[in-house]
Amino acid sequence: MPDITALLAELRTIVGDVGLLTDPADTAAYAEDWRGLYQGHTPAVVRPASTAELSAVVTACSRAGVAMVPQGGNTSMVGGATPSGTGDEIVISLARMNRVRAIDPVDLTVTLEAGVTLKAAQNAALEAGCMLPLSISSEGTAQIGGVLATNAGGNNTLRYGNARDLVLGLEVVLPDGQIWSGLRRLRKDNTGYCLRQLFVGAEGTLGIITAAVLKLVPQPREVEVALCTVPSTEAALALYTRFSRHDPAAIQAFEYMSGQGMDFVLRHIPGASLPLPVAAHYVLIELATPRENAQLRASFEQILMPALEDGVAIDAVLAESQAQRAAIWRLREEHAEAQKREGASVKNDVSVPVSKVPELLARAQKAADALMPGVRMVPFGHMGDGNIHLNFEQPIDMDAASFLARDHDLMDMVGEIVKSLDGSFSAEHGVGKLKPYMMPEWRGGAELETMRRIKAALDPRGVMNPGKVLP
Amino acid sequence: MPDITALLAELRTIVGDVGLLTDPADTAAYAEDWRGLYQGHTPAVVRPASTAELSAVVTACSRAGVAMVPQGGNTSMVGGATPSGTGDEIVISLARMNRVRAIDPVDLTVTLEAGVTLKAAQNAALEAGCMLPLSISSEGTAQIGGVLATNAGGNNTLRYGNARDLVLGLEVVLPDGQIWSGLRRLRKDNTGYCLRQLFVGAEGTLGIITAAVLKLVPQPREVEVALCTVPSTEAALALYTRFSRHDPAAIQAFEYMSGQGMDFVLRHIPGASLPLPVAAHYVLIELATPRENAQLRASFEQILMPALEDGVAIDAVLAESQAQRAAIWRLREEHAEAQKREGASVKNDVSVPVSKVPELLARAQKAADALMPGVRMVPFGHMGDGNIHLNFEQPIDMDAASFLARDHDLMDMVGEIVKSLDGSFSAEHGVGKLKPYMMPEWRGGAELETMRRIKAALDPRGVMNPGKVLP
Repeated sequence: MPDITALLAELRTIVGDVGLLTDPADTAAYAEDWRGLYQGHTPAVVRPASTAELSAVVTACSRAGVAMVPQGGNTSMVGGATPSGTGDEIVISLARMNRVRAIDPVDLTVTLEAGVTLKAAQNAALEAGCMLPLSISSEGTAQIGGVLATNAGGNNTLRYGNARDLVLGLEVVLPDGQIWSGLRRLRKDNTGYCLRQLFVGAEGTLGIITAAVLKLVPQPREVEVALCTVPSTEAALALYTRFSRHDPAAIQAFEYMSGQGMDFVLRHIPGASLPLPVAAHYVLIELATPRENAQLRASFEQILMPALEDGVAIDAVLAESQAQRAAIWRLREEHAEAQKREGASVKNDVSVPVSKVPELLARAQKAADALMPGVRMVPFGHMGDGNIHLNFEQPIDMDAASFLARDHDLMDMVGEIVKSLDGSFSAEHGVGKLKPYMMPEWRGGAELETMRRIKAALDPRGVMNPGKVLP
Repeated sequence: MPDITALLAELRTIVGDVGLLTDPADTAAYAEDWRGLYQGHTPAVVRPASTAELSAVVTACSRAGVAMVPQGGNTSMVGGATPSGTGDEIVISLARMNRVRAIDPVDLTVTLEAGVTLKAAQNAALEAGCMLPLSISSEGTAQIGGVLATNAGGNNTLRYGNARDLVLGLEVVLPDGQIWSGLRRLRKDNTGYCLRQLFVGAEGTLGIITAAVLKLVPQPREVEVALCTVPSTEAALALYTRFSRHDPAAIQAFEYMSGQGMDFVLRHIPGASLPLPVAAHYVLIELATPRENAQLRASFEQILMPALEDGVAIDAVLAESQAQRAAIWRLREEHAEAQKREGASVKNDVSVPVSKVPELLARAQKAADALMPGVRMVPFGHMGDGNIHLNFEQPIDMDAASFLARDHDLMDMVGEIVKSLDGSFSAEHGVGKLKPYMMPEWRGGAELETMRRIKAALDPRGVMNPGKVLP
C-alpha cells in the first residue's frame, strides 16, 4: 500500500499550498464528471504551475506507485478525466499552466500550455491576425491539453481536420516523470517515430501533454451561411459532393439535420424560427475564405441554382447579415437542448465513410421502428465527415425511465449497423471510462494487443490514467 | 545460428518458386541502394503475392530469428531498404502486391496495396476524376509502402501535407507475423491509440505496411505557374506570406532557387532558358484550384502587381501555356542534374520554421565562406515548408576528391545552424542507415528512449529492418 500521507507532504514541497487541494470541499468538483456519469474520490488535486513542477509531481507519484488522472477543463463526454471511486488516484489539474508561450503569424503557429482554454487560444490567434481552426461546443471550458489528449473534432473538421491534424509539436511529461521536449514547429521532419501522434488521442494514458505547437490559418475575409431543405439524405450527400467538387477549401461546415430535430428546436427554443418552409431534411452550409473579392455568394448560387432546378435541393436561403447567420447556426446548435426539453434521449457519436451516411440513416430508422415502435430518431451533425450524432428520443407515450432502461438495445442496434459499414463507435468523444468494454469487439486482436504493448512499454507501472481507453 | 537453408525451404512452400529469388544474379539489385552508398548481401529476396503470404513469411522468419528488410521501389535516399553486408538479412519485396483494391470518388479515398507505384496510384485517382496530391521525383519507381514508411514529402506539401497527412487507414504485418487490419476510411475515429501514424515514418522498423487508405482531392480545373525574381531571401519569404494570406488553399507549390543554381541550370541543361532577366533569387509559384471560373491569373496579378511596385519582387512572368509551365518547372527540376554536371556537391535536406529560412541561408553562406573560400552554395526547394535543399558545389579551383573529403565539415556546419534554429537534420529523406548516428544528439534523451521502448515492445526480437532509424 502506498503511503499517501507521505506522498502528499512531498507533493506540497513541490507545488506549495496553492498547488495542492486536499479538502473534500475543494476536490469534489474534480472527482465527478459534468455529465454525472461517474462519482469518483480523490485524496488530492495537484495543480502544478510549470512543466518542471509537473515533472517532479509525476516522478514522486510514480515512485510511490500512486495513479494519476490528468484533468483539463473536465468536459469529457466519456468520463475520461474522472478518478475512480476507490479514492487512491490523484487528480492532476493543468489549469494553472495557461500561458500562450509564443505566436508567430509568419510561421502560422502558436505555442500553448495545456491549461489554456480553447476559447482563449482562439482569441490569441485572432489578436495576431490569424485563426485557430478548431471549434467545439465546450470551447469556453475545454483546455488545450484535453482537446489534444482526446483529439477533439467539431464543426470545422472537414476543412481543417481534427485536433490531431493541427499539431506540429508537443511537450509531454512521461509516466516516469521525464520531460519530452518536442515543441518543434516544422512542417517537415522525418527523424524517427512520430511520437506526437501517439500522445494525441491517448486520453492521458501514456503521459501528460504540457504544451503544444498548433498550426494556425489566415483569418477568413468572407463568411457566408446557407440553410437548405433537401428531399432525402441521398440528396443531402449529393449536395455535399457538388460543393466539395467545386471549392472544398471553402467549405467550413456542412451539417445535416432531420425534420424531427428541427421540429423539436422550433417548438422548444424561444425565438427559433425557420427562414424557409418545413421539410424532412435540412443542411446548413458555411463557406469561408481569406480570398479578397471571393464572392462566396456567387459561389453559393453557382451550386444551389442547378441543385434547385434538378431537385437535389427543395429550397435554400442565404443569410443576409451576421444576425441571420447566427440565427441559422442556432437552429443547429440548439439540437441538444431541444432534445432535452422534449424528453429523454439516447445518444450515439458514430462515424461511417461519408458515402455510407444515407445507408446508415435508412437502416437505423428501420431497425429502430422494429425495435421500439414510436421511438423518434434525431440524427444530426457533420455529414461531410461521415460523423452523425445518431440520437433517439423517447416515444411520446413511454415514460423516460422505461425508455432509458432500454438504452443499450438502441446503442447495440446502431453499433451493429455502424460496424457492418466499417465505421467507428466513437467518432469524436473518445473511449474514456465509458467505452473501454467495446474495444475488444471493435478494435481487438492485433490492434488492441499492439495498444497494450505500447501502454506497457511507456507506463510499465500502470500509473497514468488507469481504467481509461484500454479494457 | 539460424538455419537459413531450412528457412528458405519453408519460405518456398509459402510463396512458390515465383516468389523466391536466391540466385545472386537475381538478388544483387535488391542488395544495393541506387545512390551507391551501401553494398549489401542477402541470401534471398521474398516476393509475396498477398498479405496472407507475407504474414506467413514474416512468421517463419521471426520464428527462425532471421532479420527482414522490407523493400518497395528501392529509391531510399538514406539506404533505408538495403540489407547489411553480413548476408544474413532477407529482403522482402512488396512489388507483387500491386493492386488498387478500391477507389471511391464520393468518399474521396483510394485503397492501395503497398507495391503500387506512386505514379500508378496518381493515375488511378485521375481515372476516377480525382487527384492523389503527393508528388516526388521518384514517383515512377517509388511504391506506396515505401512512400508511407518514409513519410514522403515533395512539392505539394505546403497545400496537402506530407504522406502522413493523407493516410486514413493501414494494413500492416507486424514483426511476429500478425496482421493488423486497420483499413478504415473514416474522417473521424477516436477509438484508442493512433497506430497508423506510428507505422508511417517508422521506415519499416515496426512492421511492414501492406495496404493503405489514402485521401484524394478533387482535380484542379485551373493551374497557373509564375516565375519571379526577388531582391533577397527576405523578399522571397515576404512574397510567400502575401500569397498565403490571400488564398493558401490555392498555393500548390512555392519553390525558392538561388542565382547560383539557376546559373548552373542555364549553362548545363540543353534548352533551358530564362523568361526574365537574371537575378540573385528566384521563386516559382504554382496556383491550382477546382473552382470554376477561379481566374487564378487575376489572383496572381492581385498579389504580384503591388509586390512589383513596392520592391518585394523585381520581375515576374506568368506561363501562357502548358508548354511554358513545363519549361518553368524544368528550371527547378533540373537543379540536381545541373549541379552534377558542374562538379561534386555536398547535399543537406534540412528544415527550419518557415520564418527562419532567410536567417538559415544568410548564416550558412557566411559560415561556408569562412570554412571553405570559393565554395558555392546552391540552396533551393520548398520555401513554404521551411524545407531547403542546402547544397554546396565544389570551389572552381578545388578537385572533387579534396572537396568531398571535407563533406562532413560542411554538413556539420549546416547542422549546427539548423539546430540553433530548432530545425531538422532530415526534413524529407528520413534516417535510414545513413543517419542513425545523428539521433542521440538531435533526438536524444526522453525522445530516443521512448522510441527504443516502442521498438522493443513491438519487435522484441529485433528482426524488422535492423540498423535503421535507431542507433
